[in-house]
Amino acid sequence: MAEYAGAETCDIAHAVAWVAADWGTSCLRVWAIAADGAVLAARATGQGMGVLSPEDFEPALEASLEGWLLPGRTLPILACGMVGSRQGWVEAPYLDLPSPPLVPGRLVEAPARSGRFAVRIMPGLRQVAPPDVLRGEETQVAGLLAAEPDFEGVVCMPGTHSKWLRLRGSRIEAFRTCLTGEMFALLAEHSVLRHSVGQPEGVAQTSWDAPAFAAAVAEMLSDPGSLMARLFSVRAEGLVAGQAPEAARARLSGLLIGAELAAMRDWWQGNSTVSVIAAQPLGAAYGTALSLAGVTAKLHDGAAMTLAGLAAARAATGDETL
Amino acid sequence: MAEYAGAETCDIAHAVAWVAADWGTSCLRVWAIAADGAVLAARATGQGMGVLSPEDFEPALEASLEGWLLPGRTLPILACGMVGSRQGWVEAPYLDLPSPPLVPGRLVEAPARSGRFAVRIMPGLRQVAPPDVLRGEETQVAGLLAAEPDFEGVVCMPGTHSKWLRLRGSRIEAFRTCLTGEMFALLAEHSVLRHSVGQPEGVAQTSWDAPAFAAAVAEMLSDPGSLMARLFSVRAEGLVAGQAPEAARARLSGLLIGAELAAMRDWWQGNSTVSVIAAQPLGAAYGTALSLAGVTAKLHDGAAMTLAGLAAARAATGDETL
Repeated sequence: MAEYAGAETCDIAHAVAWVAADWGTSCLRVWAIAADGAVLAARATGQGMGVLSPEDFEPALEASLEGWLLPGRTLPILACGMVGSRQGWVEAPYLDLPSPPLVPGRLVEAPARSGRFAVRIMPGLRQVAPPDVLRGEETQVAGLLAAEPDFEGVVCMPGTHSKWLRLRGSRIEAFRTCLTGEMFALLAEHSVLRHSVGQPEGVAQTSWDAPAFAAAVAEMLSDPGSLMARLFSVRAEGLVAGQAPEAARARLSGLLIGAELAAMRDWWQGNSTVSVIAAQPLGAAYGTALSLAGVTAKLHDGAAMTLAGLAAARAATGDETL
Repeated sequence: MAEYAGAETCDIAHAVAWVAADWGTSCLRVWAIAADGAVLAARATGQGMGVLSPEDFEPALEASLEGWLLPGRTLPILACGMVGSRQGWVEAPYLDLPSPPLVPGRLVEAPARSGRFAVRIMPGLRQVAPPDVLRGEETQVAGLLAAEPDFEGVVCMPGTHSKWLRLRGSRIEAFRTCLTGEMFALLAEHSVLRHSVGQPEGVAQTSWDAPAFAAAVAEMLSDPGSLMARLFSVRAEGLVAGQAPEAARARLSGLLIGAELAAMRDWWQGNSTVSVIAAQPLGAAYGTALSLAGVTAKLHDGAAMTLAGLAAARAATGDETL
């Protein structure tokens, strides 16, 4: 396994009651959960849907469960993410809007053959107008609603594909996708700007240039249509004005996140608070950007929301074998 | 050689008076020119600056001249593009704005050692505020001014990095760079949108969906800040509404070119005509987009303008050995 969230306790296999899995395009994350809801262990690997062939889905999952399985027992697993897409293990057909993020009767069982575990998959959401889809984020919203059952308002979920959702009456009414994170990675690693932005640590780098980030966000908020004419400045400021790589990197991030806020203005304008669900430090960067727009961000950890959403799904089924 | 613009006539070597060269990051193009200005032959290879080490510059150029060189003669070559950058063969220091596109005394000689050819390189342009740089486009502007000495106004030069320039009194007063072409290539070939846009022929594909392109341009012109929220629709329209790959590809192109026009609105608004210098069919796509913005595009062929600019540089030096 590529990464451990912490040292595992002994004898996980007897203590684990079920496994939560977030299985996306680039990553497979699993958590061993005790009967009382305690997280016994967490693992993450690069065995995402995007690098696996269909015949490798079950072996990859089984490998991630090493030491958690017992002879003669079928371990229940609840999964979310691209594992339920048409190109995934089994298609979990989309829920149509408006919809609660969690519809227990719509979980779909994956065709695991070993008998050592049983996998049920959360369906994603589909919006017809404008066309849009998501998978995985519905589970984090279910986690948010488990913690705040009366939540209404706007949720921003930054990432490779940022998602913005409107919730009312415990239902998702609309959502939009922004390619912000993917565009940052492509521009920082593959475009001419790569010569200027230094190493690809993203916002996690220690030498984050906060003023350069804030200035770029402000430029996009005050001149929302200007993105295409500003991106090359990330390179040219270095050539002409000696801009440092950490400033260039923060500037590129600020221009793109600012452009996302500009594109989503109708969603946050008039809201005093937007809930942001993300890993750190990305969530904090969006919090800073939103504060420049006069909006307070309420930050939630992405992995915690995923876990809470899968736990809510397990509880909602009322099925201890799930 | 990878590509010939036409069948070469016999005995080029005795007829060629000089060679014009456009040597950019990804491509080396050379034209054999007769004393009367006639183009005797044209060649293009992938031996751009980006794939060559410094010790390969002279051999790569010499290989491109095969059959054009004579024993005992030093063939004059005039070159433009990234060959004159700091990472190129020899740095041709930038001209500062405002500047004519062509300053004969600022040509820089490359350190060719064989004695079989002598290479002089056009300098690019540098702008301090906002910081920006260009190399190669100055030569095309020199070509435009050779054909239209009284030209004043705005020039749009679409490409990997689109350049917009303002000309007055035969001088370039300002310019801006948009990453439009590079972003199209990255998104169409490397992002999640690649699953939706089909093969990478760009706007050259025969099944270009003109209505989808026009609709996307119009969306960006009427909602200039919306790019980040619209890009994923290129994928989602396919998943949810069955959009065809040629429509998706044209839509992606239209969103990005529309976003470029939105970002450059101050440059074209109020101008009845913008001169567009580009290869086809890219120039025609920009012409269509500009017409949707109420502006008439006057189209010029990019290679013809480069040739005319290098010929103007040769004439301006008054040096037959150049």
